[in-house]
Amino acid sequence: MSSPSEPASTVAAARLAAVQSQLTVQPCFNRHAIHNDQPTGPADLARERANASFPVDEMTKVLFRGEENVKALQLAFQTIQRDPALRMDKGHHYDLTRAEDREMTMRQIARAVELNKHMKDRRQAQALFKAMSFYTESFSMRIYVHEMLFRQALTLFGTAEQQDQWMDDINNWRVIGCFAMTELGHSSNLRGLETTSTYDRATSEFVIHSPSLTATKWWIGMSGETATHTVAICQTIIDGENHGINWFIVPLRDPKTGRLLPGVTCGDIGHKAGRQGLDNGWIQFTSVRIPRQNMLMRWASMSSEGVFTPSPSPVLSYATLIPERFSILGGSQAILSQALTIAVRYGAVRRQGNHDEQILDYQTHQTSLMPGLAFIYLLNVVDRVLCEKWEEVAGYAQTDAGAFLKEIPDQHGVSAGFKGALAWYVTDVLENCRRACGGHAYSSYNAIAGLTGDFGVMTTGGGDNVVLMQQSARYLMSALKWADEGQEVTGSVSYFNDYKATIANNKTTYQDPRDLLQHKFVVDVLTWACAKKAVDLGAKLAEAGKAEFDQAWNENQTELVRLADVHAWRYFLILYQRGIQREKKSVVYPMLVKMGQLMSTFVLRKHLDLFLEENYFDGTHAKVIRQLFLDQCKDLRKDAVPLVDAWAIPDFVLKAPIGKYDGNIYPAYFGTVNAAQKSFEPPAYWHKYAAPLLNAPRPGAKKGCNC
Amino acid sequence: MSSPSEPASTVAAARLAAVQSQLTVQPCFNRHAIHNDQPTGPADLARERANASFPVDEMTKVLFRGEENVKALQLAFQTIQRDPALRMDKGHHYDLTRAEDREMTMRQIARAVELNKHMKDRRQAQALFKAMSFYTESFSMRIYVHEMLFRQALTLFGTAEQQDQWMDDINNWRVIGCFAMTELGHSSNLRGLETTSTYDRATSEFVIHSPSLTATKWWIGMSGETATHTVAICQTIIDGENHGINWFIVPLRDPKTGRLLPGVTCGDIGHKAGRQGLDNGWIQFTSVRIPRQNMLMRWASMSSEGVFTPSPSPVLSYATLIPERFSILGGSQAILSQALTIAVRYGAVRRQGNHDEQILDYQTHQTSLMPGLAFIYLLNVVDRVLCEKWEEVAGYAQTDAGAFLKEIPDQHGVSAGFKGALAWYVTDVLENCRRACGGHAYSSYNAIAGLTGDFGVMTTGGGDNVVLMQQSARYLMSALKWADEGQEVTGSVSYFNDYKATIANNKTTYQDPRDLLQHKFVVDVLTWACAKKAVDLGAKLAEAGKAEFDQAWNENQTELVRLADVHAWRYFLILYQRGIQREKKSVVYPMLVKMGQLMSTFVLRKHLDLFLEENYFDGTHAKVIRQLFLDQCKDLRKDAVPLVDAWAIPDFVLKAPIGKYDGNIYPAYFGTVNAAQKSFEPPAYWHKYAAPLLNAPRPGAKKGCNC
Repeated sequence: MSSPSEPASTVAAARLAAVQSQLTVQPCFNRHAIHNDQPTGPADLARERANASFPVDEMTKVLFRGEENVKALQLAFQTIQRDPALRMDKGHHYDLTRAEDREMTMRQIARAVELNKHMKDRRQAQALFKAMSFYTESFSMRIYVHEMLFRQALTLFGTAEQQDQWMDDINNWRVIGCFAMTELGHSSNLRGLETTSTYDRATSEFVIHSPSLTATKWWIGMSGETATHTVAICQTIIDGENHGINWFIVPLRDPKTGRLLPGVTCGDIGHKAGRQGLDNGWIQFTSVRIPRQNMLMRWASMSSEGVFTPSPSPVLSYATLIPERFSILGGSQAILSQALTIAVRYGAVRRQGNHDEQILDYQTHQTSLMPGLAFIYLLNVVDRVLCEKWEEVAGYAQTDAGAFLKEIPDQHGVSAGFKGALAWYVTDVLENCRRACGGHAYSSYNAIAGLTGDFGVMTTGGGDNVVLMQQSARYLMSALKWADEGQEVTGSVSYFNDYKATIANNKTTYQDPRDLLQHKFVVDVLTWACAKKAVDLGAKLAEAGKAEFDQAWNENQTELVRLADVHAWRYFLILYQRGIQREKKSVVYPMLVKMGQLMSTFVLRKHLDLFLEENYFDGTHAKVIRQLFLDQCKDLRKDAVPLVDAWAIPDFVLKAPIGKYDGNIYPAYFGTVNAAQKSFEPPAYWHKYAAPLLNAPRPGAKKGCNC
Repeated sequence: MSSPSEPASTVAAARLAAVQSQLTVQPCFNRHAIHNDQPTGPADLARERANASFPVDEMTKVLFRGEENVKALQLAFQTIQRDPALRMDKGHHYDLTRAEDREMTMRQIARAVELNKHMKDRRQAQALFKAMSFYTESFSMRIYVHEMLFRQALTLFGTAEQQDQWMDDINNWRVIGCFAMTELGHSSNLRGLETTSTYDRATSEFVIHSPSLTATKWWIGMSGETATHTVAICQTIIDGENHGINWFIVPLRDPKTGRLLPGVTCGDIGHKAGRQGLDNGWIQFTSVRIPRQNMLMRWASMSSEGVFTPSPSPVLSYATLIPERFSILGGSQAILSQALTIAVRYGAVRRQGNHDEQILDYQTHQTSLMPGLAFIYLLNVVDRVLCEKWEEVAGYAQTDAGAFLKEIPDQHGVSAGFKGALAWYVTDVLENCRRACGGHAYSSYNAIAGLTGDFGVMTTGGGDNVVLMQQSARYLMSALKWADEGQEVTGSVSYFNDYKATIANNKTTYQDPRDLLQHKFVVDVLTWACAKKAVDLGAKLAEAGKAEFDQAWNENQTELVRLADVHAWRYFLILYQRGIQREKKSVVYPMLVKMGQLMSTFVLRKHLDLFLEENYFDGTHAKVIRQLFLDQCKDLRKDAVPLVDAWAIPDFVLKAPIGKYDGNIYPAYFGTVNAAQKSFEPPAYWHKYAAPLLNAPRPGAKKGCNC
């Protein structure tokens, strides 16, 4: 053995000592915290709950729109936990094969449809769906494809007769519908879609056809194994001429046998980053004939005499994408509230560091999780405002086409910008939650990895986010132009009406840190940023002229996306403020205000370099904003546990032992891992691959190992 | 059918028209690009390759350190592709169950060990391991645990006798070793570890014991199913007194039968976010007796007479973590080069937009992918510099303890900061690659989702990154103090020797955009930032005083982490510049310089708000830096395909049809998905769960659906 030689020089020794100070071994295995079998987690969580600054029950009522809904939801969770056809076989789905996961999901759907038929109370039926959407993303997406995408196409594009013909079958799952838009070679770019529907005058039929491999409908949820019908978006060819895209109902499978119908080839898309219980698939149509009446004919139509009436506006064809994009707010809540419940509770239970601190007390932990925690409340409130507005707009589609068409542009702009900006941030929060749980979130049994996989599709599916942000930017550029021409603009872009006055004040009016807590002050700052960016970018595009427009657009793409981001967050804050007005008398209103203030500072901090670059803020302002953000995160941390508790997600739904309500996480985690291990016997491959290596003879007389 | 009523108002119509302009349906199904079965991808990639500004072969030689290595690597890839025991059964592993994946990985290891024994040429043996590390992360990690973690513990902590006793068995896998550090309740915080090794004077044995549930060794690679031995880090108790942590070799399984030895309970950790072929596990020791000689006794030791000699420095116990952290640079290259090859080639083949542009021509696509592309080259070059340095330092451990101890602090500081800062950025790049492939990266068969899952552990494993960044910050604060005391500091922190002069110049010397292309200029800017931040933070901590130190640290944690980040990136750029000097005569040197320049601008842009906040740069500078970054990304995009080609990763290793070398991606992708689908028959659950719903009788005489 080579023993250490001379002691290191004094300088080196001093340095070592410094490194040692953070590494020195202390006899702490007998210390108080979690280092033994007397868990401290339950007491930690109890204390967090006792210190809540607001009544959790009241907050739960805000989140789920009233006490009746909360009761219905709780009953629904009980139903799921007790019904063997609804609850998951192993308590979770992480160890299922894809085939098992698919089967379980369809079993849950069949049972939910059955229960639904027997439920007299519509509130209870909705609560069951909501509870299931927290419980399983694959179930939720299968329901979404059929009841939202497929049915919504009928509602928005179908005539009254068509709705009458199909709705009862849809509501009772006598058909299983899917939504065939995306193609293998085309997703966000609907203009490029290749699938054709060619009208055959001889038979009054449309012939649906996939002319090439890249025309294959791709990613289509439920087309892989179960859908009997699809609405397919196709280029409509009449007498050799393309009349643009329209929607057609195309039968796919025989509902008796499940076999593919003639001319239809559907296959399964196979393994994905998440949502294994949803049978995403692909469809190829080879000259499939459907009756004329299967074209959805509310706007465009083909009469029995063979006269084609085009839609009053091609925009109508895309209206179904608007609620799809808004659905990001609902879907994100279900996923994020679970991830944050897990990460926040774990942060309160896990102790680490010089004084065995709760890791939630670390500043970086707070800045990582607290904005996300506030964000899910904003999502919840804004979701309601948007849904109410969209229901009003969608109502016009049945009654007043003029009003419908008038509302669509802003709805389209807002939905594109929100889906882009918010889904990106959801991804960040999920990653923050994962990191906040250390290595334990790498285990599937702590759910966050699965939630992240499930969510992943949202930043590219339903329109790639970069493309959506550009759609939003394009709308902003147009709105600026209209305002410039003296037209009054409304909705999310109304600030352009006064944009000249706005940008004339190119320095902040900031006087006091309290200004930053005023909603109006923050919105004014962001309005300035949007107007300023829009005007600068508009000038650059105008300078390039029409011929060079596309090139100039691309050269400013990064900043155009940034404009769309600031605009989206600004409007998100405004809608939140509007939404919480109805809670003004609630005891939880101050907490709702507080979360809005934190997110306001978050947005200012997010785009701080923009303000600094334009000298709107100076370095002093920047420091004030950053310090305020730290203080707000620290302040919200005090209520972090109550704020996740208010989401009232049962442990069996969370499926994450480290996020357990009672805080006694380690026995639960260990128990889950043990349950997944079938046996402690050597694996089947031991004798095949390990033993021959281990027992190979040693060369010569060399001393053996110390086995 | 309700037909549209009055036409919308003129204003509304104008707005609609604007929205339409981006949505209007054009008859483009006959257009030239990828919209038919004559793929444009091959020609696109051929053109990209023809326009390369540097010889790809020469770059490959730089990446793999010479032509001989490149040849060996190519031969190794051929070996893998042809050897049925090495290659994956289905061409990939995404559809394997966990058990199948585990078995396949062990089969590959057994075969690789066998081949290794027959290889005369060490270069070829190393090439086989390198090739396999690109091919399968699970294989690579199993090898890493045994040959790096387990063996390295012997090398750094074992005596010459112990090395003599064990090395031949390790090299020939007559033992399978693992590395038991992390516990269920403790990861980054080694001081909190609970497992004990208590010396029994009566028998001259150590008794290894897990006193509680949270003491369970957790995440231990290969302990789940295969390891026969572990090195375990334990609190060493002698005569009732704790002498701190030391390393012990503990047998786990009978090498003949694979059964657990008495007192040892090992279980499998189950499903994870990635690396399913690696059997991560947990270990509980219940009074397991090992001979005194199983303590690794190079530094601390227990003599046969029962005299305990403590280690000259507790820091030594942690030395094995340094190369583990540096390994992030190697591991990240293998993963990122694949993700970028896929994303860049797909970006060159996929066409979308008004003029069917290659999506790689979009500015946001370039800013998203080009820094990552340069980054893998920086990783490659810096990895070599770091490895050479560490080999020198590790050599001292065998020969010159004083020299070893002198080098450890800076090595420790650099390894902590690099692992933290670089692993975070790797995660960003992976997410960028995923998004750059649109929905298709959500398919497991395009590999990126799997690579992301495999990598995930790196931001929390082997020391949580936030903790590591603080270790780095602590080292920086100490170094500043030493410099303040007049000591000369060296290595990564040498700039503190002149820090007063540095921060005295609190405005940039910038005169011309060309300054930003000068390595020295950028380093000076970053040096100023590090010194300025360190001095400001040091003052805040000093002000708080010793009693309030921990609290003050936490209140400045965000900025301390930021300091560590700027410092890490600064040193990373410096080591890169140092590393490429040896390629100065190569034809690819200008390209290496160019990538360093892009990353320099990337780092400045990353921390732009810091410079603006401190008025070091003003708004004009900020705009110049951001524009330069856009220009550099656009410029590098021209060579993007050749730059990923230079990594020379065969298609069968990539396992991602959309990243195929020949650019004919859609038939390959479709073929892969089809191969994964076993049959087009209805799924087994059809008659159980779908048919009963679909064929339920309709109430009354209502018209049936149009099935």
